[in-house]
Amino acid sequence: QVKVLASGLRTPDLADVIELLADDERVQLIETLGNDLDYEVFSQLDEAVRDQLSEALPNTLLAKAVTELDTDDAAYLIESLEESDRQEIFDQLSFDDRSALERNFEYEEETAGRLMQSDFVAVAPFWSVGRVIDYMRETDDLPDTFSEIFVVDPAFRVLGSVELSRLLRTKRQVLVEEIMNPDRHVVLATEDQEEVARQFARYDLMSAPVIDENERLVGVVTIDDVVDVIQEEAEDDMHALGGVGDESIADSVLSTVRSRIPWLMVNLGTAMLSPLVIQNFDATIEQMVALAVMMPVVSAMGGNAGTQTMTVTVRALATNKLGRVNAPRVITREALVGVVNGLVLSSIMALVAFLWFGSGLLGGVIAAAMIVNLLVAALAGILIPLTLSWLKFDPAPSSGVFVTTLTDVVGFFAFLGLASLWLS
Amino acid sequence: QVKVLASGLRTPDLADVIELLADDERVQLIETLGNDLDYEVFSQLDEAVRDQLSEALPNTLLAKAVTELDTDDAAYLIESLEESDRQEIFDQLSFDDRSALERNFEYEEETAGRLMQSDFVAVAPFWSVGRVIDYMRETDDLPDTFSEIFVVDPAFRVLGSVELSRLLRTKRQVLVEEIMNPDRHVVLATEDQEEVARQFARYDLMSAPVIDENERLVGVVTIDDVVDVIQEEAEDDMHALGGVGDESIADSVLSTVRSRIPWLMVNLGTAMLSPLVIQNFDATIEQMVALAVMMPVVSAMGGNAGTQTMTVTVRALATNKLGRVNAPRVITREALVGVVNGLVLSSIMALVAFLWFGSGLLGGVIAAAMIVNLLVAALAGILIPLTLSWLKFDPAPSSGVFVTTLTDVVGFFAFLGLASLWLS
Ligand SMILES: [Mg+2]
Ligand SMILES: [Mg+2]
Ligand SMILES: [Mg+2]
Ligand SMILES: [Mg+2]
Ligand SMILES: [Mg+2]
Ligand SMILES: [Mg+2]
Ligand SMILES: [Mg+2]
Ligand SMILES: [Mg+2]
Ligand SMILES: [Mg+2]
Ligand SMILES: [Mg+2]
Ligand SMILES: [Mg+2]
Ligand SMILES: [Mg+2]
Ligand SMILES: [Mg+2]
Repeated sequence: QVKVLASGLRTPDLADVIELLADDERVQLIETLGNDLDYEVFSQLDEAVRDQLSEALPNTLLAKAVTELDTDDAAYLIESLEESDRQEIFDQLSFDDRSALERNFEYEEETAGRLMQSDFVAVAPFWSVGRVIDYMRETDDLPDTFSEIFVVDPAFRVLGSVELSRLLRTKRQVLVEEIMNPDRHVVLATEDQEEVARQFARYDLMSAPVIDENERLVGVVTIDDVVDVIQEEAEDDMHALGGVGDESIADSVLSTVRSRIPWLMVNLGTAMLSPLVIQNFDATIEQMVALAVMMPVVSAMGGNAGTQTMTVTVRALATNKLGRVNAPRVITREALVGVVNGLVLSSIMALVAFLWFGSGLLGGVIAAAMIVNLLVAALAGILIPLTLSWLKFDPAPSSGVFVTTLTDVVGFFAFLGLASLWLS
Repeated sequence: QVKVLASGLRTPDLADVIELLADDERVQLIETLGNDLDYEVFSQLDEAVRDQLSEALPNTLLAKAVTELDTDDAAYLIESLEESDRQEIFDQLSFDDRSALERNFEYEEETAGRLMQSDFVAVAPFWSVGRVIDYMRETDDLPDTFSEIFVVDPAFRVLGSVELSRLLRTKRQVLVEEIMNPDRHVVLATEDQEEVARQFARYDLMSAPVIDENERLVGVVTIDDVVDVIQEEAEDDMHALGGVGDESIADSVLSTVRSRIPWLMVNLGTAMLSPLVIQNFDATIEQMVALAVMMPVVSAMGGNAGTQTMTVTVRALATNKLGRVNAPRVITREALVGVVNGLVLSSIMALVAFLWFGSGLLGGVIAAAMIVNLLVAALAGILIPLTLSWLKFDPAPSSGVFVTTLTDVVGFFAFLGLASLWLS
C-alpha cells in the first residue's frame, strides 16, 4: 500500500514526504520501498535529513544508490560520512564509478569539482556529425539528458562545444570542428561554486566544462545544480544578514540554538557599549527624565537607516554590481540620501518632541542628534561592507553588528551629549 | 576606435560598460556602435538603465532591436514606454513579430506570459524523427538554442515533449509520439513568475511550455530567464527584510530616498510607542537612573533574537519549506529555542548588572525581563510572518516592523514594570 502511494509521487514530492517524517519512519519507508525507490530522491533532500539517512542506512544500499546516481549526486549523498564508511562503499563500486567519485572528493565542498558530474559526451574534432550521432545511438552509458557535447584534443583539452540544437540541424557529412563554438566558457575545478553560478547567470549557460590544473576536461556542471547553488547562496546571505548561521527549518532545537547563540553573544557584548555611553550622562538624565524617554528613538532610527543601506550594499557586492568604478558615486549618493532622510525625519521628530514635552530644547537636541546619526548610519551602511569585502571577508555575516553598534553608540552619545551641553 | 574596443567585449560585459556610463554617454555609445551593436545587450541591462535608454533612443532603433530579439527580451525592452511610443514601434514590425509581442503584453509583468518567448519548435505526434530533423534543417526561423521540442494536437494543445538528446539517439523512422514524454510539466500564462521559478528548481526543468486559458501552447519559458527571476525574487525578499523597496545600485538620490522614506516613517511611528511605554515609568527611572542605563539592552536583544527567527521563517516560506504540516513542530522548536537563549543570555546579563551596579534587584529584574522578551521574540518571529502569509500578504516587507515594535515595547514594559513593582 505504501508502495502504491509512493509510486504515484514525483521524486521531489517523495523527498518532501521523507523530510516531514520522523527519523526512524524515514528509514522504514526507504526499506519498504526497496527496489521501487528512485535513488534520485537522495539528491533532493535537505542536508540535515541527508546526514541522518546516510548515517542510518546500510552501506550496501548506499553503494547501490551511488552506482545509479550521477557523480555530483553520489558525492552529495555520502560527503558527510566518516572515512571508513565511505571506503566500504567505494569498495563495492565498479572501477569507473569509483575513480569518477574519488575525483569529485579531491575537490572541496562548494567548488566546481565537487559540483560536476563525470557523465558527458566528448568527441574528436575530425569526427563527422553523422559519426557523432551514430556514436550516441550506440552507447548506453550516456548522461540522462544533456544539451551540448564537447570537442577535445588527444590530451582531453577542451577545443570547443556543439549545442545539440546545432548538431541536429547540420548535415551528417560536416565535421564537428567546422560547427563547434571555440570560445567555450570553461570552469576551473577548484573554483568556488558561487563564482561558477555568477558565470552561468551572466553568460546564460546551460552547462559548463570543468577542467583540472592540466586543462584536462574532468566533468560538467549543469544548470539544474547551479540553480540550487544560486538559491543556497542567496539563502546564506539572507540568513547571515538576519544573524543566523547555515541552518534549515528541519534542524533540531539544539543545533538551532548553536546556530543562533554566537551572534546573540556578540550582540550582547556590543549592546553593553550603549549603557557605557549612557552612564556618563546619568546626571543629565536625572535633571531631565524626558531624555531617557526619547533616547531609544534616536538610536532605533539610526539602526533602521543603516540597515537599509547595508542591505543594498551587501546584495550589490554579492551580485558583483558594486566595484571600484562605481563605489565613489554610490558612497556619495548614500551620504546624500542619509542627509535628506535625516532632515525629513528630524523635522517631524522635533515637532513631536516639542508638542509632547513643550520643550524647544528637547526638539532641537533630538533633531540635531538624528541628522548626525542618519548621516553616520548611511556612511557606516556602505563603508563597513565595502571595507570588509576589500579585506576579503564576507560582508553578509558581520556588517550588521558593526553598523547597529555604531548607530546605537552615536545615537545615544549625540543626543545625550548635546543635551548635557545645552543644560549646563 | 570605440567600435574596436566594444567588439572585443562579450554582450554582458558591454552591458556593464553601458551601466557605468552617464545618461548621455550611453546614448552616444549606442549611436556610435550603430549596426555593430548586439541588441541582446538591452536584455542584460538593469531596469533603471533600460528605462532611461528606451526613453532616450529613437523609436526606429527600438523597432529594429525588437525585431532581432526574442519575444521576452523585446517585451522587456519596451515594457515601460508610454502607450503611444509602443504603438509607433508596433507599426514598424512584421505581422508575426507584432502579434507575438502583443500576446506577451496581454499578460502582466512578472507572469509566465510576459516571461515567455514565442520561438519554439512544435510538431505533430505522427511525425517521424527523420521528418522532425529535416524540418529543423530546412527552417530558418528557429530559436537560437533550445533543448526540447513540443508535440501538439491540431488545436495546439501540448501532448508531450521530446528532449533533443532523446531525439538525436532515436532512429529516423520512429514516430515522435512513441518517444515523447507525456507527463510534460506545463505552465499557465497567468502564473506568477516566482511560482514558475519554484517549479523549475523543483523539477530541474530547462524549459517549460506556456499555455493560455484554452490550453493552447503560446510560448516557452527558458531556464536562463528563470535564473534571473530567482535572483530577482531573492533580492526583493532580502531588500524587503532590510526595509528597502525595489531599488538598484544605479538609482538616483531622489528615487533612493523615495524607496526608503516610507519604511523609515512607519518605523518612526512605531518607535514612538517605546517613549509612550517608558514615560509611564519616569518616576521609577528618577528613583533609579541605572534602569535608563540598562533598558536599551533588553529591547536590543529581543530585536536581535526576533529578527533571527523571522529571517529563517520568511525564507522558508518563500521557498515553500514551511507549511501547514510542519508549522506546529517549527513553532514549538522556536519557542524552545527562545527559552534556552533567554536562560543563557539572562544569566550572563544578571551577573554583569550585579557586578556593575552592585544591585541584586537590577540583576534579577533584567534577567526576568530578558527571558520574557526572548520568548515573545521567538513567537513573534515565527507567528507574524506565518499569519501574514496565511492572510495572503507577502511576509518579507512588513514582518520586521511588527517584530521589532513588539520586542521594543515588551522589552521596556517588562523591564521597567518589574522594576517599579519591586521598588514600590
Ligand atoms: Mg560559498
Ligand atoms: Mg542571464
Ligand atoms: Mg546533477
Ligand atoms: Mg540536482
Ligand atoms: Mg556568499
Ligand atoms: Mg546552506
Ligand atoms: Mg523575431
Ligand atoms: Mg513577485
Ligand atoms: Mg533542482
Ligand atoms: Mg529569453
Ligand atoms: Mg535573458
Ligand atoms: Mg516574493
Ligand atoms: Mg526587482
